[in-house]
Amino acid sequence: MSMVDVTGKPEVVREASAIGQIRLRKETVKLISEGRVKKGDLFQVAKVAGVLAAKHTSSIVPLCHPLPLTSVKVELRIVDETTVEAESTVKTKAQTGVEMEAITAVTAALLTVWDMTKEYEKDAAGQYPYTEIRSIRVTNKTKEQV
Amino acid sequence: MSMVDVTGKPEVVREASAIGQIRLRKETVKLISEGRVKKGDLFQVAKVAGVLAAKHTSSIVPLCHPLPLTSVKVELRIVDETTVEAESTVKTKAQTGVEMEAITAVTAALLTVWDMTKEYEKDAAGQYPYTEIRSIRVTNKTKEQV
Amino acid sequence: MSMVDVTGKPEVVREASAIGQIRLRKETVKLISEGRVKKGDLFQVAKVAGVLAAKHTSSIVPLCHPLPLTSVKVELRIVDETTVEAESTVKTKAQTGVEMEAITAVTAALLTVWDMTKEYEKDAAGQYPYTEIRSIRVTNKTKEQV
Amino acid sequence: MSMVDVTGKPEVVREASAIGQIRLRKETVKLISEGRVKKGDLFQVAKVAGVLAAKHTSSIVPLCHPLPLTSVKVELRIVDETTVEAESTVKTKAQTGVEMEAITAVTAALLTVWDMTKEYEKDAAGQYPYTEIRSIRVTNKTKEQV
Amino acid sequence: MSMVDVTGKPEVVREASAIGQIRLRKETVKLISEGRVKKGDLFQVAKVAGVLAAKHTSSIVPLCHPLPLTSVKVELRIVDETTVEAESTVKTKAQTGVEMEAITAVTAALLTVWDMTKEYEKDAAGQYPYTEIRSIRVTNKTKEQV
Amino acid sequence: MSMVDVTGKPEVVREASAIGQIRLRKETVKLISEGRVKKGDLFQVAKVAGVLAAKHTSSIVPLCHPLPLTSVKVELRIVDETTVEAESTVKTKAQTGVEMEAITAVTAALLTVWDMTKEYEKDAAGQYPYTEIRSIRVTNKTKEQV
Repeated sequence: MSMVDVTGKPEVVREASAIGQIRLRKETVKLISEGRVKKGDLFQVAKVAGVLAAKHTSSIVPLCHPLPLTSVKVELRIVDETTVEAESTVKTKAQTGVEMEAITAVTAALLTVWDMTKEYEKDAAGQYPYTEIRSIRVTNKTKEQV
Repeated sequence: MSMVDVTGKPEVVREASAIGQIRLRKETVKLISEGRVKKGDLFQVAKVAGVLAAKHTSSIVPLCHPLPLTSVKVELRIVDETTVEAESTVKTKAQTGVEMEAITAVTAALLTVWDMTKEYEKDAAGQYPYTEIRSIRVTNKTKEQV
Repeated sequence: MSMVDVTGKPEVVREASAIGQIRLRKETVKLISEGRVKKGDLFQVAKVAGVLAAKHTSSIVPLCHPLPLTSVKVELRIVDETTVEAESTVKTKAQTGVEMEAITAVTAALLTVWDMTKEYEKDAAGQYPYTEIRSIRVTNKTKEQV
Repeated sequence: MSMVDVTGKPEVVREASAIGQIRLRKETVKLISEGRVKKGDLFQVAKVAGVLAAKHTSSIVPLCHPLPLTSVKVELRIVDETTVEAESTVKTKAQTGVEMEAITAVTAALLTVWDMTKEYEKDAAGQYPYTEIRSIRVTNKTKEQV
Repeated sequence: MSMVDVTGKPEVVREASAIGQIRLRKETVKLISEGRVKKGDLFQVAKVAGVLAAKHTSSIVPLCHPLPLTSVKVELRIVDETTVEAESTVKTKAQTGVEMEAITAVTAALLTVWDMTKEYEKDAAGQYPYTEIRSIRVTNKTKEQV
Repeated sequence: MSMVDVTGKPEVVREASAIGQIRLRKETVKLISEGRVKKGDLFQVAKVAGVLAAKHTSSIVPLCHPLPLTSVKVELRIVDETTVEAESTVKTKAQTGVEMEAITAVTAALLTVWDMTKEYEKDAAGQYPYTEIRSIRVTNKTKEQV
């Protein structure tokens, strides 16, 4: 098993963006839009989680290279009455790309949204019939021409 | 901001299961089924990533409680010609539940599948028009009656 | 060298609170109070940093015991025109106290305040003649009587 | 929210130094000076804590960039009969400075001093009326001219 | 105390290989060779552990520099009826060598082999009279000529 | 793949001890015995590395359970003119034993000894023909009778 050998590749500027969504109950999204989630400022916490996760990608995903990230940006938004979206953009100057960092950031942000809205999403039996993380994708990936 | 106070809750046996899927190209799923993914044994690496992530949940999701997990199980399987599925079950004896650990395990496993199949999923322009993590859900959550 | 042996001590509810301050330029505190810090919502990020650091105390402070924290609370406030204060309260049910977790939380929150206001605190020579973390103390520590 | 974009900045040699103090009881400082702290060699453990914390700065302070540190030095000394001082110097060759790494190192060293002298600092009620981390500052920051 | 200053050294390609062995009972090695270890695919899990540990070396070994590894390879094999061997090769382009990363990878892989075969190695009294990690060495270390 | 289910096992006091050795050059052991290792106080740093590694065992060894360690002790000594020995004792009150924590502590301590004596161990070609970690064993493991 190996972490792919990128020793000989050029260190160029690389950038990747990812996006992902979580479906929540209408009532939960309403609480978010009104800033009434009891556990705290949901979007702020989720963004911090995303930024930190981007930096920890090579610990979470075993064969990822540790990279000196030069920029990480995470945003969250309500896109419709049952959907919250996270979006990230990550940059580095390195021998390999940062799409895994971008999707790891999005994923950690969405996990945090779930965690902070758990109490509103659970049904009477303590189950989550509605909550769903859905559609995490890489929206763009570029590298500087050498 | 606070990590919810669970000090007074009973330490009981708690269990949660989660499931998630990633859509890949037909050619990639075929390579997986034939054990020909160059980076190594995809499912084994993804399972390890899932187990480790379950244990690191309270570092990845900021307001999660650190819990002494007593069992973590992660499985992967091909469910149809374009879909790989990860499933996890986590147990603890603690004051709060482990559904976040279960979905974090599934998520890390799916991120690892993406990472190890990147080279087959990218198109000529280096983009991922097809790859998508989709439908991460908690399938069951139980606790021992006190 | 040893991490003190607490094996025989009773697992009781323990709580500790800590407080700490950072001195900033008047202009910086004004920016904070007006919500105009460019890097983001300063207090939210600092609180998340504090909560996470509380959970990582036994990694940061070598001889601290790893403890299953049951509650972590971190607050930040402006106390006068040049001072921001962080306060934390941590609980556990364990064999040893959580005062190190409380001061580690406060410390990480204050480091984050510094990091996010760096650009306003530096002078023309790139130095920090004014910025100072000051007076980190444990304000209270209790344990349940056995 | 974003970790500031430093992609375009030059990779130059950067250095930062920080200093911080902890106030302890006279009796405790005497024990330290006589090498009689029961938990072990206080200054050695605190230095290791400082070096490790410098390397973990981007995990502790959410918006810090991960940097390939090329030098970390941490020293501790008794400065008067109630004061222990920690000092650090950190270097890198990167796109952004290392002052946060320097103060994080000092902070972790002082937290460790507190942890290892807890038993001498607590009063009969288990409180810390005297112990205080005070005055953590950046003493110098330089970068190579480009 | 200090992490040695390598700021002025050239960033060149560096490579190191290490090897190590663990002695197990004949019955255990037989189970491994037949793929019948109950805890899972021993060699796959051990390889992942090795790769991850290589990346975490500067956290495990306090004075090691954090390095942007560009390649990590870990292999395991049965060398005789009581011996399993782990071998690693690590590369970077940095100011200092990667031999510590190579032996840390081998060590984590061997610890994992032990962990996954514990149940077969313990005697009736729960002791390990036979199991032994032995002979961890650096087999080769090179650097590009400047 | 799974981290073995120990949910139903009794939480009892468990203890394990491990021992390990590293062979160094005669000249290096002499430097150690005279306290002249340039990188710092070798045994102190190695002990801290051992204590921290014990606490991180479940991150280093993928299928280990996270355990609330209640005691970790690491000692180092020179046993003959070419051998340094590390010994650890770890305790917990949990559902499973701590032998992996004990050998992980010993291992990290020995890796640190290697790292801090590298400059004396390397030959003119930059190789390590003599240095060897050897014989890491569990010397004792006990649990409280239920």
